[in-house]
Amino acid sequence: MSLAQNFATRTRRMKASEIRELLKLLDRPGILSFAGGIPDAALFPKAEFAEAYAEVLAEAPGQALQYSVTEGYLPLRRWIAGEMARIGLACGAENVLITSGSQQALDYLGKLFLSPGDTALVGWPTYMGALGAFNAYEPRYDRLHIRTNRPAEDYRAAAEAAGGRVKFLYLSPDFANPTGETVDRAGRERLLDLAEDLDCMVLEDAAYQSLRYEGTPVPPILALELARKGDLDACRTVYCGSFSKTLSPGLRVGWVVAASTVIQQLVLMKQAADLHSATINQMAIHRVAEACFDAHVDKVRAAYGARRDAMLDALERHMPDGVTWTKPEGGMFVWLTLPRGVDGADLLARAIEEKNLAFVPGRAFHADGSGENTLRLSFSCADAPMIEEGMKRLGALLRAPRT
Amino acid sequence: MSLAQNFATRTRRMKASEIRELLKLLDRPGILSFAGGIPDAALFPKAEFAEAYAEVLAEAPGQALQYSVTEGYLPLRRWIAGEMARIGLACGAENVLITSGSQQALDYLGKLFLSPGDTALVGWPTYMGALGAFNAYEPRYDRLHIRTNRPAEDYRAAAEAAGGRVKFLYLSPDFANPTGETVDRAGRERLLDLAEDLDCMVLEDAAYQSLRYEGTPVPPILALELARKGDLDACRTVYCGSFSKTLSPGLRVGWVVAASTVIQQLVLMKQAADLHSATINQMAIHRVAEACFDAHVDKVRAAYGARRDAMLDALERHMPDGVTWTKPEGGMFVWLTLPRGVDGADLLARAIEEKNLAFVPGRAFHADGSGENTLRLSFSCADAPMIEEGMKRLGALLRAPRT
Repeated sequence: MSLAQNFATRTRRMKASEIRELLKLLDRPGILSFAGGIPDAALFPKAEFAEAYAEVLAEAPGQALQYSVTEGYLPLRRWIAGEMARIGLACGAENVLITSGSQQALDYLGKLFLSPGDTALVGWPTYMGALGAFNAYEPRYDRLHIRTNRPAEDYRAAAEAAGGRVKFLYLSPDFANPTGETVDRAGRERLLDLAEDLDCMVLEDAAYQSLRYEGTPVPPILALELARKGDLDACRTVYCGSFSKTLSPGLRVGWVVAASTVIQQLVLMKQAADLHSATINQMAIHRVAEACFDAHVDKVRAAYGARRDAMLDALERHMPDGVTWTKPEGGMFVWLTLPRGVDGADLLARAIEEKNLAFVPGRAFHADGSGENTLRLSFSCADAPMIEEGMKRLGALLRAPRT
Repeated sequence: MSLAQNFATRTRRMKASEIRELLKLLDRPGILSFAGGIPDAALFPKAEFAEAYAEVLAEAPGQALQYSVTEGYLPLRRWIAGEMARIGLACGAENVLITSGSQQALDYLGKLFLSPGDTALVGWPTYMGALGAFNAYEPRYDRLHIRTNRPAEDYRAAAEAAGGRVKFLYLSPDFANPTGETVDRAGRERLLDLAEDLDCMVLEDAAYQSLRYEGTPVPPILALELARKGDLDACRTVYCGSFSKTLSPGLRVGWVVAASTVIQQLVLMKQAADLHSATINQMAIHRVAEACFDAHVDKVRAAYGARRDAMLDALERHMPDGVTWTKPEGGMFVWLTLPRGVDGADLLARAIEEKNLAFVPGRAFHADGSGENTLRLSFSCADAPMIEEGMKRLGALLRAPRT
């Protein structure tokens, strides 16, 4: 007998991810890795977390160690509602659900909206973890044209021809993983128009939104929709936030802001799936956020902003002709486009072998398997000398003939 | 437009749970609640957790607050493997996956095995949270006859007639929620035979297994299968454990032990769904488990054992003729069967209204909506005087004519 014959059909879409395999490379001695898109542990507010856990366990241990409500810790939901109001997104705690990181929000949103054969519109490229989360619900993907218009009718006809409907468009509008690019206000308004035409949802992944190093913040898509409609419960945009890139990813605390109809259904789903996110972590992160969120985010932005500058500067000096890259205003990533015919995965194999250097080849971010001549560089965990040395090695590799 | 038109078909199976609504009743002033199946917060090892978080954040803050591997914290997985060996279930850390409570394990196992229309065999009654988790994957349920034989061919034929296969049988063999009953060794062997005949999986929910107050432990189903086959990777039983009933539910740490094929697929699934369970909580619970697991479980068993005794004693004195109940050897629950024609949900409404008393009506534990004349009492959070007063009120209610 084979255990696998008992697996559901959806498992055919669940394969080992390149991110996962690549994270293992970070342990290689001496490797210069620009692969993992993770925050720098040196920047975590460690003393503040130590104090917060000590206080929570001194003042309310019975509550911190006990089961709690699925919606999440109310003081934290209220704090988040206050933060949302500061970015144009006035809402009540009843519009906020706490999730175990924004990755869990993506899983639950796929589960909430996608029946097999439905269509999800995503960028080419897009966050590969979103594709991983959605794959479990067996959607069809179509390419979301973010900066150009494509008639709604074309999306609709293609979805119906495949036997489903367009259920949502997904994007990370600020300093996206993997490109680092930001969608301007006009682009966001166009996407809202498209969603209206398609009568579908908009999933706004705001994981990196707080990490802006220059330029003027663009209102969240949900804020623009709220300005149009005046009522959050009439909005089709679902906003996914996270503390992972600002305070700590190890606590697994993120949130969703959406219309009550959506929140209520997500609460039912989360209750059935894991009851609630860890009580103690919600209480601790609430204290740390109250104590130092703005000051800590300023510190993180200063550090990552300097690393971005160092990377853009080093790229300018070391990349050969024919290589282009994005100029992100925030986040953790720069996206490189290599000359046609240069394959990012082949290049990675050579980089590891010849240069002890790592990055993420771009194909895994493309739902259609294209993007072979692209790659993602992360600067969040690299200091200036490492960036200089890494880009020098990458430039040399791109100049060297393949053996 | 209606946002709900974008919902997936699976949401039709996701409804508000009675457990959830009932947990809200625990806040009513003065209510005597035997409803929630939660541990007593007074028993949590608070000092040990305070020390563990302080140590983790002093010794390895960068690790505790950072992303970590999907499989879980290796020292914790090794500790669990050691515990499993003590109950006849020798395994390596590679057979252990950390989940966010055993509820998440049930969700992932439903996701792993069930395609819409497949059959899950469950007891009538069974844990309602398992039904909630599985519902999202749109199975058909058939009644698992736990203590009597029903030919495998009957299960198979019914599943095929419904257009699917029997993918697993699910049960909690020790002090089950909601009945408190335990399946004896011969019963477990019969269920393994049935699973062999059906070539399906066995999901063994061991959430309460450590909480035995009398009698001799029965080997886990997975231990019996391992004894038959000699190789965990050949076993079809998936064991789900949890720290929620022993150390703390608020940290959301549980685990799965299974064949490598199953663990590897679950790891892919969990990575796509929430990356990993909270790093800091895995590190803290590992320290607490190392420091005091056996001693603390002894303390919890002594406390709950005395409460079970008080409840069985009070039931004996206060229940009118025609009411019968289980005599659990462990766990948190006693299951009452009322005279035919007495409806548990009606009785709850009267209990709250007339007696400020709460319990869980039995119907919600039945996949077919039967069990109207049953109810579940939990004794885990009640001291002896509360149990005495509560059973007295319940007896009076059952003797009083309906108005």
